Amino acid sequence: MPKLDLDTIEPTNRTGYPEPFASDVAGRWYRRIGDAAEFKDFGASHVVLTPGATSAQRHWHEDEDELVIMLAGEAVLVEDDGRETMQPGDIAIFPMGAANGHHLVNESEADCAFVAIGRQGTGVVHYPDIDLVWNGPARRYEHKDGSPY
Amino acid sequence: MPKLDLDTIEPTNRTGYPEPFASDVAGRWYRRIGDAAEFKDFGASHVVLTPGATSAQRHWHEDEDELVIMLAGEAVLVEDDGRETMQPGDIAIFPMGAANGHHLVNESEADCAFVAIGRQGTGVVHYPDIDLVWNGPARRYEHKDGSPY
Repeated sequence: MPKLDLDTIEPTNRTGYPEPFASDVAGRWYRRIGDAAEFKDFGASHVVLTPGATSAQRHWHEDEDELVIMLAGEAVLVEDDGRETMQPGDIAIFPMGAANGHHLVNESEADCAFVAIGRQGTGVVHYPDIDLVWNGPARRYEHKDGSPY
Repeated sequence: MPKLDLDTIEPTNRTGYPEPFASDVAGRWYRRIGDAAEFKDFGASHVVLTPGATSAQRHWHEDEDELVIMLAGEAVLVEDDGRETMQPGDIAIFPMGAANGHHLVNESEADCAFVAIGRQGTGVVHYPDIDLVWNGPARRYEHKDGSPY
């Protein structure tokens, strides 16, 4: 049956971020539910943020749409223009190319959980707050001057 | 801000099903949140089922992955091999080509709500219980003998 038993998928807190940016997402535990289903059209992750963890460094994608659906607990969605609280049932939409960095921060004292849906892009990911760029075509993180990590 | 205010999107209960199959989804009220975001990578709908309504005729897609995330209330997921109850936070995965028709039925006495994610496919959709096939290449519903509705 297609109802997902999350316990059958091992969570990971792996990240490709170079330090010092990796530690901010050490409390981000995710399960790649799209991979478990062998999805081809898009990817999906079930993500738990422990208190203090962030979903990602604040970023935006040149070529990937993103959708977030809050399932449990509470997180703060941070963008250029402010902060909003996300609660269970809340939905956030991040269309590709919208040049407004976003991430979720768990500022509460309990875990929170959400599902994030996206497609593996090949383009550039921008991180407005830090000296980091994902060079999609070259498949590597770079400093903003183009030098590699 | 990208947090979605569902009230800004008009719900519809439109369906392309021919009768007598349309009436089963008359209580399916959906908002195309992917279209509202001008998503290109995939589509997403926020769906409310009134008591007695179904999400769709039981079906499976040759060429579309589908993901359902339950938000509120309760629905019964029906497949070839049985029934499962979906409650808030539950996730169901339907990989393309898995020849096992599925749908959600609201057998409760209250509305239920979920988000469904998929991509507009061009292939065939099979309806095992009824005399209906979606002929994707021809963009029309047909009887199982290939004659059009």
